[in-house]
Amino acid sequence: MKKKVLFSREEMARLCVEALKSRGVEIDEIAKIAYQQQARYTSNIRFETCRESVLKILSLRDIFHHVLLAVELDRMAEQKLFRGPIQDIIEQDLGLFGVDEVLGLDVARLYGVIGMTNFGDIDVNKHGIVSRLNEDGKKEGIVHTFLDDIVGAIAAAASTRVAQVINEDIAHEEPHKAISLFD
Amino acid sequence: MKKKVLFSREEMARLCVEALKSRGVEIDEIAKIAYQQQARYTSNIRFETCRESVLKILSLRDIFHHVLLAVELDRMAEQKLFRGPIQDIIEQDLGLFGVDEVLGLDVARLYGVIGMTNFGDIDVNKHGIVSRLNEDGKKEGIVHTFLDDIVGAIAAAASTRVAQVINEDIAHEEPHKAISLFD
Amino acid sequence: MKKKVLFSREEMARLCVEALKSRGVEIDEIAKIAYQQQARYTSNIRFETCRESVLKILSLRDIFHHVLLAVELDRMAEQKLFRGPIQDIIEQDLGLFGVDEVLGLDVARLYGVIGMTNFGDIDVNKHGIVSRLNEDGKKEGIVHTFLDDIVGAIAAAASTRVAQVINEDIAHEEPHKAISLFD
Amino acid sequence: MKKKVLFSREEMARLCVEALKSRGVEIDEIAKIAYQQQARYTSNIRFETCRESVLKILSLRDIFHHVLLAVELDRMAEQKLFRGPIQDIIEQDLGLFGVDEVLGLDVARLYGVIGMTNFGDIDVNKHGIVSRLNEDGKKEGIVHTFLDDIVGAIAAAASTRVAQVINEDIAHEEPHKAISLFD
Repeated sequence: MKKKVLFSREEMARLCVEALKSRGVEIDEIAKIAYQQQARYTSNIRFETCRESVLKILSLRDIFHHVLLAVELDRMAEQKLFRGPIQDIIEQDLGLFGVDEVLGLDVARLYGVIGMTNFGDIDVNKHGIVSRLNEDGKKEGIVHTFLDDIVGAIAAAASTRVAQVINEDIAHEEPHKAISLFD
Repeated sequence: MKKKVLFSREEMARLCVEALKSRGVEIDEIAKIAYQQQARYTSNIRFETCRESVLKILSLRDIFHHVLLAVELDRMAEQKLFRGPIQDIIEQDLGLFGVDEVLGLDVARLYGVIGMTNFGDIDVNKHGIVSRLNEDGKKEGIVHTFLDDIVGAIAAAASTRVAQVINEDIAHEEPHKAISLFD
Repeated sequence: MKKKVLFSREEMARLCVEALKSRGVEIDEIAKIAYQQQARYTSNIRFETCRESVLKILSLRDIFHHVLLAVELDRMAEQKLFRGPIQDIIEQDLGLFGVDEVLGLDVARLYGVIGMTNFGDIDVNKHGIVSRLNEDGKKEGIVHTFLDDIVGAIAAAASTRVAQVINEDIAHEEPHKAISLFD
Repeated sequence: MKKKVLFSREEMARLCVEALKSRGVEIDEIAKIAYQQQARYTSNIRFETCRESVLKILSLRDIFHHVLLAVELDRMAEQKLFRGPIQDIIEQDLGLFGVDEVLGLDVARLYGVIGMTNFGDIDVNKHGIVSRLNEDGKKEGIVHTFLDDIVGAIAAAASTRVAQVINEDIAHEEPHKAISLFD
């Protein structure tokens, strides 16, 4: 009998939260990066909207796969289960190793392309918990090569979702005159 | 006074439908490509779910910008408003001109990366209305360089959304045994 | 002492060829997909240019990382080294699992975006060896979830490089009248 | 007779330089962003390698298309040639308008995915000339919606190429012991 591979959104969100927690990452730490990034552009953001956005993102199938894979890849590199040069490349988090960024960018673009530039900012400038994960990853026996990018990417997607929600509200507040297509 | 640039989802969907219609594209023709593509993998698809997916996609801000821009770019190329070599490159739809595919891929990935490979299939093999748009675009005075890609990309995204909806249903039907993270 | 993680292009090409061979993939089989895809558009392609393109691609750092990682991920899934649901998802190559396509698309875009649509075509329609890898991957004990996408992506990039080379030649053959920017 | 649409690499580089100059952008200003970004990670960078990288990038077909299109799109928006809401959206460079970033990301990834995160950093934090272009674009009658992203993206790609060149050198300097694939 084939094992269950399709999960409901509630199950996926729960499993993501557990997987991140097993690597020392709390939801609120991710929401905090999103909050700080978006606060540069808008003043009236609620932290609750950021946390809610992170949880919504973690309930999506593509993200679920990314989170579980990232967590396992780091663990397997810690346990030296990869063979050949790729073990050392992942373990040392070589500057020119970019597969982790490829995966991060796929997560970050969830609510629009701005998420990808937001991710670039977080990745290069190491905001919040991303900096801690990055530093810890340099210690003997700890590998965070994939985790820091996934966490930064979820934060970037959440920050973008918050911007979309705020703008959707503004769009509804503006006086609705009739708009025509080709004036 | 600044002009209105933020629209509600209802307004965006309506303006997209109008813009596509002004270039001879009907919603049902897009839904048909999505239907045929997804029918290869699943038997129980309803055409209505495909149409609904197309309309949902057209209500999103990023897609709204893509559709309006694509329609205008083709029109401006028809009216020879571009200066320099790029006018001829767009007008002749040069095989190695790839900006239209870049834009298409951004639309196609809306409901997951599978949308991007679905778009590749539609783009290379010219399914349904995409073939007609492509052929018409070769006629004197007609430019469809950007339109055929946007239409194919919306179909690819819709087809991917349908797959996600079906699998979400299956996930709920499967017996819910307790799942744990690291068995 | 840190282990060597930076390799020269010759070393990377050689290691890629070995890694692919260890999973039953020959360079000429990849070149063949590129040849057949490009032969649809141009008649005067030499198979040697396709093989040369594949080898050139395999000498690039990003591709080197992708190939080594893909080969290891499949092997580790065969040996059931992943923990939790992601083991079964990779092992069964779930239709909605898209991380393999994310990685493939990153490889495919090497010589321009057309590589990404070429990859979509190969991925959806299973050209040449991709079909064999895909079928074999369904057998008990064999996992090709990542391999078939990397192989298809290398072929797509090679096919795109061949098109670029041919067009570069044409550009040089055309009579060189003076071109100005904004006529 | 069809107009010439295929150009040689020398022609494309020259036309790109002219197009950028026509919008007030000098090659050295782009090289400077690349230099400053890469100088964070390596000390021995030569400015000449940065300038050379920018010029090499501008000789590539995909980039040629991007540069010419970006320059024309901004000009056409300045001359109010777009019809409908997209004219105002581009003119005001709406925060949630992301097509310019989509195009920028496609340019930035030329030498590997790190270019995309480098671009995100430049785009969000407005390095060097990108800041000036962005500020000028807010003035009445000037539109830089697409230009600032293309310029930032070329800088990001150049910065990534410089990193690749440096690492290629290091790879050759390291003692060449025999490497085997699966130790």
